[in-house]
Amino acid sequence: MSALTGLAQALMAPDSIALIGASGVIGKHTSLPQRFLRSHGYAGPIYPVNPGRAEIFGEKAFVSACAIGQPVDHALIMVPTAGVEAAVADCAAAGVRCATILANGFAEAGAAGLARQQHLLALAGGMRLLGPNSLGIINPLDGVALSANEVLSIPTLTRGSNALISQSGSMLGALLSRGSSRGIGFSRMLSVGSEADISLAEIGNMLIDDEHTETILLFIETIRDADAFAAMARRAYAAGKPVVAFRLGRSDIGAELGASHTGAMIGNGAAVDSFLRDLGVVRVQLIDTLLDMGPLLAGRRPPSGKRVSVMTTTGGGGALVVDSLCERGAAIAAPDAALIEKLAGDGIAISDSPLIDLTLAGANAATYGAVLRALMDSAHCDMVVAVVGSSAQFRPDRAIEPIAAACATPPGKPTMAFIVPEAEASYTLLKEARIPVFRTPEACADAAAAYLDWRAPRTAPPASAPAAAAEALARLPGEALNAAQSRSVFAALGIPQAGEMLLDADPAGWDDASLGRLGFPVVAKILSRDILHKTEAGGIALGLGSADALRSAGRLILERVAQHFPQARIDGIQVETMEQGLAEVMLGYRHDPGVGPTITVATGGVMAELFRDFSIRTAPVGVDTAHEMIAEVKSLAIVRGYRGLPRGDVDALARAIVALSALACLPGQPIADAEINPVLVKGEGKGIAAVDGLIVRRPCNQNDEEETTA
Amino acid sequence: MSALTGLAQALMAPDSIALIGASGVIGKHTSLPQRFLRSHGYAGPIYPVNPGRAEIFGEKAFVSACAIGQPVDHALIMVPTAGVEAAVADCAAAGVRCATILANGFAEAGAAGLARQQHLLALAGGMRLLGPNSLGIINPLDGVALSANEVLSIPTLTRGSNALISQSGSMLGALLSRGSSRGIGFSRMLSVGSEADISLAEIGNMLIDDEHTETILLFIETIRDADAFAAMARRAYAAGKPVVAFRLGRSDIGAELGASHTGAMIGNGAAVDSFLRDLGVVRVQLIDTLLDMGPLLAGRRPPSGKRVSVMTTTGGGGALVVDSLCERGAAIAAPDAALIEKLAGDGIAISDSPLIDLTLAGANAATYGAVLRALMDSAHCDMVVAVVGSSAQFRPDRAIEPIAAACATPPGKPTMAFIVPEAEASYTLLKEARIPVFRTPEACADAAAAYLDWRAPRTAPPASAPAAAAEALARLPGEALNAAQSRSVFAALGIPQAGEMLLDADPAGWDDASLGRLGFPVVAKILSRDILHKTEAGGIALGLGSADALRSAGRLILERVAQHFPQARIDGIQVETMEQGLAEVMLGYRHDPGVGPTITVATGGVMAELFRDFSIRTAPVGVDTAHEMIAEVKSLAIVRGYRGLPRGDVDALARAIVALSALACLPGQPIADAEINPVLVKGEGKGIAAVDGLIVRRPCNQNDEEETTA
Repeated sequence: MSALTGLAQALMAPDSIALIGASGVIGKHTSLPQRFLRSHGYAGPIYPVNPGRAEIFGEKAFVSACAIGQPVDHALIMVPTAGVEAAVADCAAAGVRCATILANGFAEAGAAGLARQQHLLALAGGMRLLGPNSLGIINPLDGVALSANEVLSIPTLTRGSNALISQSGSMLGALLSRGSSRGIGFSRMLSVGSEADISLAEIGNMLIDDEHTETILLFIETIRDADAFAAMARRAYAAGKPVVAFRLGRSDIGAELGASHTGAMIGNGAAVDSFLRDLGVVRVQLIDTLLDMGPLLAGRRPPSGKRVSVMTTTGGGGALVVDSLCERGAAIAAPDAALIEKLAGDGIAISDSPLIDLTLAGANAATYGAVLRALMDSAHCDMVVAVVGSSAQFRPDRAIEPIAAACATPPGKPTMAFIVPEAEASYTLLKEARIPVFRTPEACADAAAAYLDWRAPRTAPPASAPAAAAEALARLPGEALNAAQSRSVFAALGIPQAGEMLLDADPAGWDDASLGRLGFPVVAKILSRDILHKTEAGGIALGLGSADALRSAGRLILERVAQHFPQARIDGIQVETMEQGLAEVMLGYRHDPGVGPTITVATGGVMAELFRDFSIRTAPVGVDTAHEMIAEVKSLAIVRGYRGLPRGDVDALARAIVALSALACLPGQPIADAEINPVLVKGEGKGIAAVDGLIVRRPCNQNDEEETTA
Repeated sequence: MSALTGLAQALMAPDSIALIGASGVIGKHTSLPQRFLRSHGYAGPIYPVNPGRAEIFGEKAFVSACAIGQPVDHALIMVPTAGVEAAVADCAAAGVRCATILANGFAEAGAAGLARQQHLLALAGGMRLLGPNSLGIINPLDGVALSANEVLSIPTLTRGSNALISQSGSMLGALLSRGSSRGIGFSRMLSVGSEADISLAEIGNMLIDDEHTETILLFIETIRDADAFAAMARRAYAAGKPVVAFRLGRSDIGAELGASHTGAMIGNGAAVDSFLRDLGVVRVQLIDTLLDMGPLLAGRRPPSGKRVSVMTTTGGGGALVVDSLCERGAAIAAPDAALIEKLAGDGIAISDSPLIDLTLAGANAATYGAVLRALMDSAHCDMVVAVVGSSAQFRPDRAIEPIAAACATPPGKPTMAFIVPEAEASYTLLKEARIPVFRTPEACADAAAAYLDWRAPRTAPPASAPAAAAEALARLPGEALNAAQSRSVFAALGIPQAGEMLLDADPAGWDDASLGRLGFPVVAKILSRDILHKTEAGGIALGLGSADALRSAGRLILERVAQHFPQARIDGIQVETMEQGLAEVMLGYRHDPGVGPTITVATGGVMAELFRDFSIRTAPVGVDTAHEMIAEVKSLAIVRGYRGLPRGDVDALARAIVALSALACLPGQPIADAEINPVLVKGEGKGIAAVDGLIVRRPCNQNDEEETTA
C-alpha cells in the first residue's frame, strides 16, 4: 500500500523499527508500542533497546541502538527526559534515519528546556527528529502503530483517506477513537509535538505527495513557521487536497493554555484564523465536523455562492438545522418561482417558505428524490441540506436511496444529509456512499459554514511601500515613536492626516499667534511615547474654541500628566483641527509573532473592543480586500448607507487600509505595531483624516533581516 | 408503577384504549399503535374501531366507539382530517374520558382550520382532547406506547426519571431514539400538538404530581398560554422538579417556521427566553444537553456563584472544554493559593494556570481523586468539570472510580465529567452513578452555561402604575399617540423629560418670542403619529442656535415631510432643548403576543440593532432587576465607568426602566408598544432626560379587560 518515499517512508512506513527504552513489563506504557505494532500487523524487524533485557516479548533486545548492527529506519525514543540526549546520540551514531521523541520537558519547559532541545538537534546530525512531546505515528494503511497511546488497543485500525496531523498528542488518540466508533478511518496520523525538527508543514508536504491521502486534517494549537505553513497550504490547494483545520484556543484563556502547554507563542487567535483563511484552509469549530468533513470537500473547490436550501420530512428536525445554520451566519434560500413551478409539474406542491417541509407524506423515495434532484439543479441555491427523519432509523434503505441516487453524479452541488434520530445504519450507508452526513444540527451547520467560508488562497498584492516611508522611519530613533513621529510615517505612506501643530512642553513659549495657527476649534493631546492611553491619563482636551481655552487646557493637561505619570517623557502638546467625521475608525498593523504581518480595521472608541467587531487579514492587502474588510465590520454599517444614513468615503478608507498594510513590504518588516485611532471618515468623496496614531518597532532580535545580516 | 390519577391516569396509563381508524394492513401507519402497545407490554383491553373489519391482529374490531359497550379511558383518533369531527362526536357519545388526535389541518391551517378546531371542542363536551397534530403518548414506566411513530419499533423502552413534553411530534421520536441509544430513559413522553384543549401547562402540572418524574423536559416552539405556563413553572420550582427547555426558533427564520408549522404566533425569541428564565426554567441550546441534563439538576437549586474549575489529564481535551465554556460566557477560575497549598500538602503540585492539567502522570485514582475532592471542597469555584482522557476508553473502572467516589456524598458542588475519547463503558458507568457526563465539549459547556444561568423564579415587584398615567392615557384618543402625547404619559409615569415646546404646523404663527422660549441650542422634529422614522423622512434638525435657524429649519422640515409623506397627518413641530448625555439609551415596553408585557433596554442609535445588544425582562421589574438589565447591555459599559470613562447616572436610568415597565400594571394592559428613544443619560447624580418616544395601544380585541367586560 505504502507508496511513500524518502523521509515519509522512514517516518510512516519504516522497514525496520527500534524501540528505545522498551519494556517487557505489561502495565508499563513503554511495553505497549511493540505489542501494538505486532497486533496491528507490522511485519518488519523490531529491535527493542533495553540494556537490562536480552529479549522482550519474544524479540531479541539490544543494549543500544548501535548494538543492533542492522539498518534502522525509525527509532521510537521512550526514555525519560533526562535520557533523551544520550538516546538521540546513540541512534544518530547507529545511522538511524529518523527518531520520534515521546518525552516532554523541552521547548515547553522554559529556557533550560529550550536549550536541551537545541542540543538534541545538534546531537541528531543527519538523523531527522519528530517531537519532542510527540505521541508517535499511526499509519492505518500500512498497519504501522508506532505509539504508546492506549487507543491502539482497538482490534483494527479503520482505513480511510483522511490524514491527520495533530499538535496535541492526546487528541490524536481521541480522534482515532471517535472516528473509529463511527467507521471513519484515516490514511496516516502524526503527532508532531514541539516540531523541533520535522514540522507540521514538512509533514503536510509529505501528505500532499501521498497518493492515498485525499484530505489533510489539522488539529492545531499554534503556527510555528508561518512561511513554511503558507507554502504547504498553497501547494495542497493547488494539488486539490483540501486542508481542514480545527484550532484550539478560540477563547483567550484557551489561547493561554495553548501557549503554556506547547511552549510555543500562539498567535492571536483572530490573526491565525485570518492567516488560515487567506491560505485556502477550511476551518471548522467542532471536532465532530473535522471527522465528518472529508466527503463534503472531496473533489470540490470553494463555493461560488452562499445560499443554502434545506428540505425535510420532519418539521422539528428541519427547523433545528435551520436554527443552527442561521446561528452560523448561513443564508437560507427560499424556493424561487421556477423551482415551485417545476415541482408542481411533477405533482409536488411546495410553498415559498425557507424550509421545504414535505411532512411525513413526502417521506417516500419518489417525492423525496424528485425534490432533492430539483434543488440540486435549481439556480436559487448553492448548497443543499437534506434532513432525514424517522425513516432513517427503521427503513435505512428507503431513506437513503433517494439521496444516494441524487448524489450519484459527482460533483454536482454540495449536498449534505442531517439525520434527526439515532440511525447508525443510515449513517453508515451514507458514509459508504461518500455522501456528507452529520448527526447533530450543530455539526451540520458547522460543516456548511466552514465550506461556505472556504476560499482559494489569496494572491498577495504587488508588494511595495513608498520609499518615503522607509526614509521617514530611518530618520527616527528609538523603539516607540511618539504621535507626531508616527504621523510623519503615516503621511509618507500616503494616509491623509488631520491638520496638526506642536506646542512645546513649556507653556512659557505659547503666544496667541502660535496657538491660533490652525484656527478653532481644536483638540489638544499630550505628546509622549510613554503614554498609551491618553484619556485615562487626563491627557486630552476636546472642542477648544479659542487661544485662551487652548492655553488653559494645555496647562491642565501637563499638570495632570505630571501627576499621574511623573516618569513619562513629555515631548509637548499636539494640537489638531477638530475634524468632523461620519464615523471614527481604528486601523492597526501588527506583526503577529505567529503568523507575521496583519492588518485590522475596527470602529474607533470602545465599541470595537466591547463587541470584538473588527476585520483582520494578513498584510499586505489590495484594495478589493480592503473593501471586503470594511464590509465585515458590523458597526461600519453607519458609513455604508445603512438605514438611509449618509454614506462615508469608504473608497478613501480602503486606500488607507492598503497604505497602512504596506508596512509589511518594508525591508525586514521593522514594525511591530502601528495604530491609527481614530481615522475620521468623512462624507462620500470628502476623504478621511487620520487624527492620532503610534508606531512601535520590533526589537532587533525579532527582525529577520537584521538577524540574517548580523 | 403508574400512581397517576385522574386525567393523568386516563391520558398516560389508561385502563382501556380505543384505536379509532385502526388498520390491519401491515405497512399502514394506522396499523402500528396496536402492535406497539402489545409489543411494549400493554395488558389492558384494546378496542380497534374500523367499520370494515370484524377483527384486527386477533382483537375484536368495532364499527364505532359507541359500539364498544365498555368503558374506554383513552381513544387514539387516527382518521384523516375530514373524519376527525365525526370520530370525536362518536367518542364523546361513548363516554370516552380522553382522546388524542393525530391529524393535522386544524389551528395551523388558517381560519377554516381554526374554526374546525373550535368545533372539535364543542363536540367533545366533557371528553378531554390532546392535539390535534399530536403524535401521541409514550409512557415507558407503564409500558404504554400509544403512538404511530416508527421509533417504537425498538425492542424496549428505556425507563428513566425524565419526562418529556414536546410541541414537535417528530422530535419526540428523535429524542426517544437518541436517548435510547445511550441508555437515557424517560418516565413519560407526550406530544401536545396544537394544544386545543389539554395544554403543555396542564400536562406539566400532572408531571409535577407524578412521583416517578424528577425532571420535566420541554421541546418547545411557542408559549400558548403564558399565565398557565407561568403558574406551572413556579409550582414545579417550588416542588423541586427542575423544568428544562429546548426552544426551537432561536433564529428569526426558525421562529417563522415555528409559527407556520404550529399555527401559533411565536413570541419574539428573546421575549420567550426572558420569560422562561424569569420563571426558573433551565434553558439549553443543544438537544444533546436536554437528554444529559437530568443528573446535573437532580436535587439542586440554582447556583450561588458562576466560577468554573476545569481539571484534566489531557491538555488538548481540557483546552477543548475550556474553549467551549468561554464561548458560552463561563468564568474559568484559576486555583487559588489555598488550594495549591492544600494539594502540595498531599504531594500534588499544580500551577495557578486556569486549566488544572495533571498530565498523563495524574491519570491514577489517587491523584485524580484527591484533586477532584479538593476542587469540590475549595472556595475558589462554584462548579467543577472533570475531563477524562484515554483511560476512560480502556480502563473505565480506573477512570471512573475517583469521580464516583468524589461525587458519592450528594449534593456537594455541581460536578460534571467530559469524556474526550469515545468511551461507551465509562459513559454508561457515570450515567448509572447519576453523575452528569457529556460526550462533546459543546454539550458540556451548554449544560454548565444552562445551570449557571438558572435562577429561582423572579418575584414580581409590587404592581402599581401612577394613577396619573392611566388618566393621561384616558384623555388621549386614537391607537397611536404622537410624540407629544406619548411624552405626557411618560411624564405621568415619572420619567424625566427633556425641555420641550410645540410649534404649530403653520409657520405663519412662529414669532421670535415663542421660538426662543427654551433658549438655544435646540432640536426640531416633525410631530406626526404617521411617521415612525423621522430621520429618513428628513424630519429632524439638530443644533439650532438661534430663532432664525429654528425658523428656517422648521420650514425645511415641513417641506421635506410634505414631499416624502404627503398623506401624513402633521401635528406640528416639536422643539427640544439639545441636551448632552454621556450615552443615548433606548427603553422599550412591549406586550408580546406570546408571553405578555416585556421591558427592553438597549443603546440608542443603530448599534443596538446591529449587535442585538439589549436586555429584556418580563414586565414589571423592580429596581434591582433594572440594574441587572443595565449591566447586561454591553455597550452601556460607557456609563458604567469602563476604562476610566465618566460614570453616568445609572440609578436614574434604573428608575426610568422601573417606571416604564409599570405600564404592565395598568388595568387591562392597554399598551402594545411604548418606546423612548433616546433617553440621554447624564453624569452621575445629574439624572436622565427622555428626548423622544411613542406609544401604541393594543387593538381592542387584544385587550383582555375590554373583552371580558364587553
